[in-house]
Amino acid sequence: MIKTDILIIGAGPTGLFTVFEAGLLKLKCHLIDALPQPGGQCSEIYPKKPIYDIPGFPEILAGDLTRNLLEQGKQFEPGFTLGERAETIEKQDDGSFIVTTNKGTQHQAPIVAIAGGLGSFEPRKPAIEGIADYEDKGVEYIIKDPEFYRNKKVVISGGGDSALDWSIFLTDVASEVTLIHRRNEFRGALDSVEKVGELTKLGKINLITPAEVKGLLGDGKIEAVTVVKDGESTQIETDHFIPLFGLSPKLGPIANWGLEIEKNAIKVDNSLNYQTNIPGIFAIGDVNTYPEKLKLILCGFHEATLMCQAAYRIINPGKRLVLKYTTVSGIDGFDGSRKEAPKAVVQAIN
Amino acid sequence: MIKTDILIIGAGPTGLFTVFEAGLLKLKCHLIDALPQPGGQCSEIYPKKPIYDIPGFPEILAGDLTRNLLEQGKQFEPGFTLGERAETIEKQDDGSFIVTTNKGTQHQAPIVAIAGGLGSFEPRKPAIEGIADYEDKGVEYIIKDPEFYRNKKVVISGGGDSALDWSIFLTDVASEVTLIHRRNEFRGALDSVEKVGELTKLGKINLITPAEVKGLLGDGKIEAVTVVKDGESTQIETDHFIPLFGLSPKLGPIANWGLEIEKNAIKVDNSLNYQTNIPGIFAIGDVNTYPEKLKLILCGFHEATLMCQAAYRIINPGKRLVLKYTTVSGIDGFDGSRKEAPKAVVQAIN
Repeated sequence: MIKTDILIIGAGPTGLFTVFEAGLLKLKCHLIDALPQPGGQCSEIYPKKPIYDIPGFPEILAGDLTRNLLEQGKQFEPGFTLGERAETIEKQDDGSFIVTTNKGTQHQAPIVAIAGGLGSFEPRKPAIEGIADYEDKGVEYIIKDPEFYRNKKVVISGGGDSALDWSIFLTDVASEVTLIHRRNEFRGALDSVEKVGELTKLGKINLITPAEVKGLLGDGKIEAVTVVKDGESTQIETDHFIPLFGLSPKLGPIANWGLEIEKNAIKVDNSLNYQTNIPGIFAIGDVNTYPEKLKLILCGFHEATLMCQAAYRIINPGKRLVLKYTTVSGIDGFDGSRKEAPKAVVQAIN
Repeated sequence: MIKTDILIIGAGPTGLFTVFEAGLLKLKCHLIDALPQPGGQCSEIYPKKPIYDIPGFPEILAGDLTRNLLEQGKQFEPGFTLGERAETIEKQDDGSFIVTTNKGTQHQAPIVAIAGGLGSFEPRKPAIEGIADYEDKGVEYIIKDPEFYRNKKVVISGGGDSALDWSIFLTDVASEVTLIHRRNEFRGALDSVEKVGELTKLGKINLITPAEVKGLLGDGKIEAVTVVKDGESTQIETDHFIPLFGLSPKLGPIANWGLEIEKNAIKVDNSLNYQTNIPGIFAIGDVNTYPEKLKLILCGFHEATLMCQAAYRIINPGKRLVLKYTTVSGIDGFDGSRKEAPKAVVQAIN
């Protein structure tokens, strides 16, 4: 059982900044995310795209924002349960909650902060007969660890940035990379499209277009895929079939936690501290809704900050909380580190 | 008469970020600030101090934050009335407001956003007989433009960073720099204290400690100051006397605008969009108060953003407002500039 002060569902920008604000109040955080790495959409969907409306950054790439937020909170040593989806929640007699993931990992905390963005990202799956039987037996919809494909044959399917970028990346890892797309045209960054073209010419990517994977073969695990091009069917031997057709967010199991839901988002009390209808459970960032709500990252930062104060008071009833400014008080990390502004000296001049 | 869409009182971080968010909605801003430059406290009080709790910046100097915010909003061409304090407000028959400064400059806008921080910064004035008569006649409490002192004799009084840093700076500008402090010890950045020591040894700063300016002399303008050291009185010829004893924030004339005030802050409706009790007047950032309010820069950013949406609806009644993401839609500046994410190409690979 993983125990923490604030259990955060969702490791996107709002969840990551919560770690920092909670840390200032000496509260420890643990984050659960269905994606294999922190950052949410910013890491998984558009890491190389610029965001222009983060205050103080005339422009920042989404991936850099994620890295900065991880760096900002790292001295508060957050825990992570990644690649697992928060599935059930149970209130305990002592007022705390136990959250269990789809893989059975259990977490206990007095405060749960749902920072789930648009929901957990579920892959769009191609309609190939029997594909479900091969999941985790050679069929993967998300690449969690590229090393998993070391010296393996892989077939990637898709026509967007993910398919392009992973095909490029895996040429250095896999023994054979085949990229299949149902059109000749790819949609992605110019760089990536050109690079795939070069690697195809060099024989490092086996490009088949316009074509579709129509069948899967193998005994207990993938051994080959059936590809149809110009009406003709061929088989390609492979260890892995990776359809990268995009991710689609779903509120998912959280929708059944007894929370008030409106337009696919969780209703919270914005006149106070973004608490849901269940005391001790808060919802912050794009996952919540209230009058005049804007689904912007900068709003999630504010909501997270006010929520942490409320969490502090629930965890430390009766204890007085005085707002300290980081410029004045500095930051004491849970790892023993200390950050502070250079001190003024008091010194005579002779 | 200066006309704009949103008239912002206070050019601190919250006011500056408002320019950006308003610009995204095609609303133009004009800012009034009592200080001679934008940035509020961040520029005037602690430009070289690090802030650790701006989301996405593990550390940023307050002066750099100001520069970044100015850069982020510059394509929306904000107007500035600096070095003047907003003094009176009058509602017009057409629903707009006219705000007049202490120097008589008039501004008209349908929306007023008070982003006044802790108030307008008023200098702490030394208790020297007749000093008021010499104000703007050789006595200045804030240095607005160092060039004003080119080839002039200046006497600076004070023992903190301002006194140290301006003494250093003016040695390259003024013909003579005298620094007077009532103690031997200065309180400031080690660098600055040491530098003043060096410049004193080189004869570029005339340092007199422990001593106090007790009198002012001159006919219609400052010609000399009377300095008392060890009980002995001497006169020093000078063109300017600049007491730098710090700034103290005062809510000031805004307190008389008919707004609901609580604990020296303006009450707003945080359940919606930070509007005050007077429709069309909003208060954002440290100057406002509501249940669970935190006086943090990041909260001001959120408040400014929600306020701009409300301003849009007041200015464009009945017009539909759809939230656009900057990553997707890019940014069209009022200056004709365009920022946008690199476009995906749709291209065949052969």
